[in-house]
Amino acid sequence: MKKGNKYGTHRVIEPKGVLPQPANKIDNNMDEIYDNEILIDVQTLNIDSASFTDISARAGGDHEKIKEIMFEIVATQGKHRNPWTGSGGMLLGTVERIGDALVGKTDLKIGDKIATLVSLSLTPLRIDNIKEIRDEVDQVDIDGKAILFESGIYARIPADLPEKLALSALDVAGAPAQTAKLVKPGDTVVIIGAGGKSGMLCCYEAKKRAGITGKVIGITHSQKSTDRLTTLGFCDHVFPADATQPVAVLEKIEALTSGQLADVTINNVNISDTEMTSILITKDTGVVYFFSMATSFTKAALGAEGVGSDVTMIVGNGYTRGHAEITLQLLRESEKLRNIFTELYA
Amino acid sequence: MKKGNKYGTHRVIEPKGVLPQPANKIDNNMDEIYDNEILIDVQTLNIDSASFTDISARAGGDHEKIKEIMFEIVATQGKHRNPWTGSGGMLLGTVERIGDALVGKTDLKIGDKIATLVSLSLTPLRIDNIKEIRDEVDQVDIDGKAILFESGIYARIPADLPEKLALSALDVAGAPAQTAKLVKPGDTVVIIGAGGKSGMLCCYEAKKRAGITGKVIGITHSQKSTDRLTTLGFCDHVFPADATQPVAVLEKIEALTSGQLADVTINNVNISDTEMTSILITKDTGVVYFFSMATSFTKAALGAEGVGSDVTMIVGNGYTRGHAEITLQLLRESEKLRNIFTELYA
Repeated sequence: MKKGNKYGTHRVIEPKGVLPQPANKIDNNMDEIYDNEILIDVQTLNIDSASFTDISARAGGDHEKIKEIMFEIVATQGKHRNPWTGSGGMLLGTVERIGDALVGKTDLKIGDKIATLVSLSLTPLRIDNIKEIRDEVDQVDIDGKAILFESGIYARIPADLPEKLALSALDVAGAPAQTAKLVKPGDTVVIIGAGGKSGMLCCYEAKKRAGITGKVIGITHSQKSTDRLTTLGFCDHVFPADATQPVAVLEKIEALTSGQLADVTINNVNISDTEMTSILITKDTGVVYFFSMATSFTKAALGAEGVGSDVTMIVGNGYTRGHAEITLQLLRESEKLRNIFTELYA
Repeated sequence: MKKGNKYGTHRVIEPKGVLPQPANKIDNNMDEIYDNEILIDVQTLNIDSASFTDISARAGGDHEKIKEIMFEIVATQGKHRNPWTGSGGMLLGTVERIGDALVGKTDLKIGDKIATLVSLSLTPLRIDNIKEIRDEVDQVDIDGKAILFESGIYARIPADLPEKLALSALDVAGAPAQTAKLVKPGDTVVIIGAGGKSGMLCCYEAKKRAGITGKVIGITHSQKSTDRLTTLGFCDHVFPADATQPVAVLEKIEALTSGQLADVTINNVNISDTEMTSILITKDTGVVYFFSMATSFTKAALGAEGVGSDVTMIVGNGYTRGHAEITLQLLRESEKLRNIFTELYA
């Protein structure tokens, strides 16, 4: 077997010298694998929501045309990076071969069912046949093969949880795992976008860590999500607010914390212009964790400087060691989480 | 005196409910001040470089036309936020009045000479007369007044350093002060963009903190800045590289650190697509501090996830408590820094 690079640069065809994600074309020949690669027999592609919506619109919703577009993307690039949205997704499949250099190093075995947690936008993929397109969940069942690089992250699908339930939580596994690392006993934690999928997981984990002497405040958007989160009982306070309005939200948080503000603010909301709200409601010595992909780097940096806040602002990293295990464990330990996830997402 | 809001929202005319920075128009009437404001008699506007370059281009370099544009900006907005670049700058002036509510709370006295370290893009400003335009340093001397809000940050101009020298360092005061907080004895620190103004300050501070058991590596761009930084002697290693090429830079850093990589990487370089390089050269347990305003939030977030790196990525905050004092002190204690700053910037 040929020696591969940890990050998969050995598969990059052009431009040379870049990593697989920004590459325009990567090698998706799977007849031979490199010594540090894992070959996956693919069952389902979980297309990124923005990507699937875009492809479906281009195809006018016609499944045969969706198939044509998908084949064309992979033929051109060797991977399924949507050329218009730039986004990928993840995949589900079974371990078929393990490169020689990984034997004894990886905990995977041939036959293990896994979900890759690295983006399809960098994953070598070959599609032999498209079997079924499930529009409502952006999933496509295929016959095909994919490569997981040595640095690629994955989760083994647990035997004791329904597959769809596990997948729905793995999709946002980074958020609750990072919350677990950040929140200390006694902390006041504000979660913006608390009523969504990652928001609910973060609220549960934050309360677990902050404990009885801490305080978890969930900011929601709709009345429906407010009622749902209130009923779950993970938060000390829940209120709906427009997170783009810093002054109004600040007044509310001041009232709920006797003017002390948050030690940790976790921003999960996928709309623009919520940086300033996140900064203002957080103590000078506190931390804002931005999980929202709508975060503007410059608005955050200049915003904090503009109001003289010494807050630490962290770029949300979707990966942290053990994030998949941590998140699946939450579904096992909380019946409430398991039920609401089953109802809404599985 | 009327009671003011800490962040200056009492000056916002429209749209209502936002902070002074995003506001389209703020109140620049200085005849009366609010109880928590400081009135400044302005001497010099230090226009943001992007803003000044833009205004000068629109005016075809003609000073009378530059004046017209500047008067028009302030007449429309009540502040000097360039409508095309969105950026501001800082100002230099003398404290003229202190609001009643700040007496005993602020350490400023009437007559103190200060530089405001909050952006002109949120500072109420009145220009009575434009006296001199100094193109080469983006500075404009005026007769006028400005308001510093209660949350506004500033630095007192020290008596023992030349004014221009002090200003040139205050402009980037956040970077070395954050370096001081991040770097621990024995750390390996890589500074990207090490040959520039903030880069040199960071290298000096990093070596001071990392100490004899630590290692500071400076990545520069041109041969000129490489030679200059090498001569200064703050770094253990200096090399020129294209920071947009992650694989090549990674190989170099692996060689210099026996494969151990960096504990702390500080990115000061103002070009795009350097996120991946910053992530790859940093340990899984390390920290990347992004000071570059060219940083893309999504490229950083998705980049780390794509290569399975658990690195902590921090959004550069131009403010941290004591940053002006910390940075001015560096110029006092290092003759080498003082000389190179005097030669290049003062």
